[in-house]
Amino acid sequence: MDFDRYDRIRPIRWMGDHLALLDQRKLPFVVEDVHCTDSDAVAAAIRDLVVRGAPAIGISAAWGAVLAGREVQAEDGAGALALLAPALDRLQAARPTAVNLMWALARIRRVLRVAGDNWREVLECEARAIETEDLAANRHMGALGAALIAPGSGVLTHCNTGSLATAGFGTALGVIRAGVAEGRIGGVFASETRPWLQGARLTVWELLEDGIPATLVADGAAAHLMKGGQVQWVIVGADRICANGDVANKIGTYSHAIAARHHGVRVMVVAPSSTVDMDTASGEGIEIEMRDPAEMLSMAGTRTVAEGVLAWNPVFDVTPAGLVDAIVTERGVVQQPDAARMAAMFGAGGPR
Amino acid sequence: MDFDRYDRIRPIRWMGDHLALLDQRKLPFVVEDVHCTDSDAVAAAIRDLVVRGAPAIGISAAWGAVLAGREVQAEDGAGALALLAPALDRLQAARPTAVNLMWALARIRRVLRVAGDNWREVLECEARAIETEDLAANRHMGALGAALIAPGSGVLTHCNTGSLATAGFGTALGVIRAGVAEGRIGGVFASETRPWLQGARLTVWELLEDGIPATLVADGAAAHLMKGGQVQWVIVGADRICANGDVANKIGTYSHAIAARHHGVRVMVVAPSSTVDMDTASGEGIEIEMRDPAEMLSMAGTRTVAEGVLAWNPVFDVTPAGLVDAIVTERGVVQQPDAARMAAMFGAGGPR
Repeated sequence: MDFDRYDRIRPIRWMGDHLALLDQRKLPFVVEDVHCTDSDAVAAAIRDLVVRGAPAIGISAAWGAVLAGREVQAEDGAGALALLAPALDRLQAARPTAVNLMWALARIRRVLRVAGDNWREVLECEARAIETEDLAANRHMGALGAALIAPGSGVLTHCNTGSLATAGFGTALGVIRAGVAEGRIGGVFASETRPWLQGARLTVWELLEDGIPATLVADGAAAHLMKGGQVQWVIVGADRICANGDVANKIGTYSHAIAARHHGVRVMVVAPSSTVDMDTASGEGIEIEMRDPAEMLSMAGTRTVAEGVLAWNPVFDVTPAGLVDAIVTERGVVQQPDAARMAAMFGAGGPR
Repeated sequence: MDFDRYDRIRPIRWMGDHLALLDQRKLPFVVEDVHCTDSDAVAAAIRDLVVRGAPAIGISAAWGAVLAGREVQAEDGAGALALLAPALDRLQAARPTAVNLMWALARIRRVLRVAGDNWREVLECEARAIETEDLAANRHMGALGAALIAPGSGVLTHCNTGSLATAGFGTALGVIRAGVAEGRIGGVFASETRPWLQGARLTVWELLEDGIPATLVADGAAAHLMKGGQVQWVIVGADRICANGDVANKIGTYSHAIAARHHGVRVMVVAPSSTVDMDTASGEGIEIEMRDPAEMLSMAGTRTVAEGVLAWNPVFDVTPAGLVDAIVTERGVVQQPDAARMAAMFGAGGPR
């Protein structure tokens, strides 16, 4: 299946001598790159949300390491690694909780440790591999997930899990792209995703760029939409998937999953296997990050709520495995996930 | 129980020679009245959303009729009614779908038809009665609803059903005010209510004005909130209640009701009996008003969504009676509503 037609956005582009990052803070109105010519500029771009989405952050950091490598002289990889350590630490500290950032920099450190005098080439190849593997995984997941969708289905997605959050194609949005390419999808709906509006600002924009018309709905309108029979699948990404199949994802996912079950609509979670955390038994073990209540008090920079009002602003919620119909990773699909089926696909917990 | 302490906001104030309306378009940042000195100014205020909320619109229109009466000379009510007809029609056309507006003006016409030479007094008394009865109904519903709430309960409300939407005290917010006055409520949560943000702009403001701290949550965070055990009741208003107990209310209500059932949280609907429509058998018979998709594309006057994006913007949704635990009206409480229990309280359908 030719997916290229629906995959034109690249938020991260290595330009041979610098890294171009699509500035996601300005989307959808200004389509503009930030050009990073050294690793600290990449760290700043990650910290300031020029680039967002766990896979995209990891890839950007890997290219940041390549830029750092240009600033040091060393005879082999081990020597380079010693000189690069401060720059890599600064990249890693840019968003300290992002798992993919740590994972990507661990890969960089691992190959440098064994590289000879061609360490610069090795470093650049590893960065390219991290990026290429992500895109390949997304396209593979797209095909796996799309195969679950009956022709003519309507789909609802939440937050942004698209090209903008990855090397390209996306995770949940990758399944939607693949489903559209295969002619399976009758309608795409995207929920706004308050308070950050990733759905409104990013998802409907990137789908429109790829010629996939999507309809924006308020988060609170999803249940009413499902009742009308226009949606057969809710398709979302994940920030962490537990050993029993519980899924932590952007706030509002759980609400959609409950409404989906109520209406016989199915729920698909799409994420690379690096998102699966077999060391966390269930969602009970996930601490939900709380963000500044101020994010709830303004809209597009304009204060909308009276002074003195309290707000509650959890970033994620946990959808229990019992509400999930399929977890799609590049390793395969776990249908009706539970601890046994997850272990069969991803092995037992403990150090891997 | 002394409710006055928690009931200080009056959006509609008859000043003896004109009508003062709290300008709800400017809340919560500017607390300012619009002064209406003739009936067309009242019609404009209704049309332009200076005043909103079905009961508040009806009351305002009644005072508009009083102002119209000052502009005509007639020997008795019937003569006045003939002269007032154009002004009353303009009031009624201000928001043609508002049931309470028609209901209030029908009361005005009915008393004028039989009034003698004291028709001006009769007119003013009727307007005052409409207003006073609304406040009394709200306080009575407040007490009835609060009695259902176990001490220490957390409550979640949606949209604005408060003093701002009524003569005062509110419907669902009236129950919350009464519950707070009686010391039954451990925490109040209000959901934003996209796309108009009535919860964010109005509800948390008016509760704060009355010294009732409320916490704002995103619409999509309600299910996660319920999972944490902080909410025992979802308490909402209604735009129409059908003969079988199905409830049409602001978009997002249905989503909250499904999540409530999933978590064993109870759902209370609070509305005056004039909201009960025994001629509509079920929610299937309600046409859901669709509003301009443009409302979904901007926030606080700033465009947030790319050009060319489609949006779906239903104003209401229908919560089936099976998800409702109690319907509270000034006539009494219908627990676990169904067609038989509704008929027992409100009589059969047909002209009343």
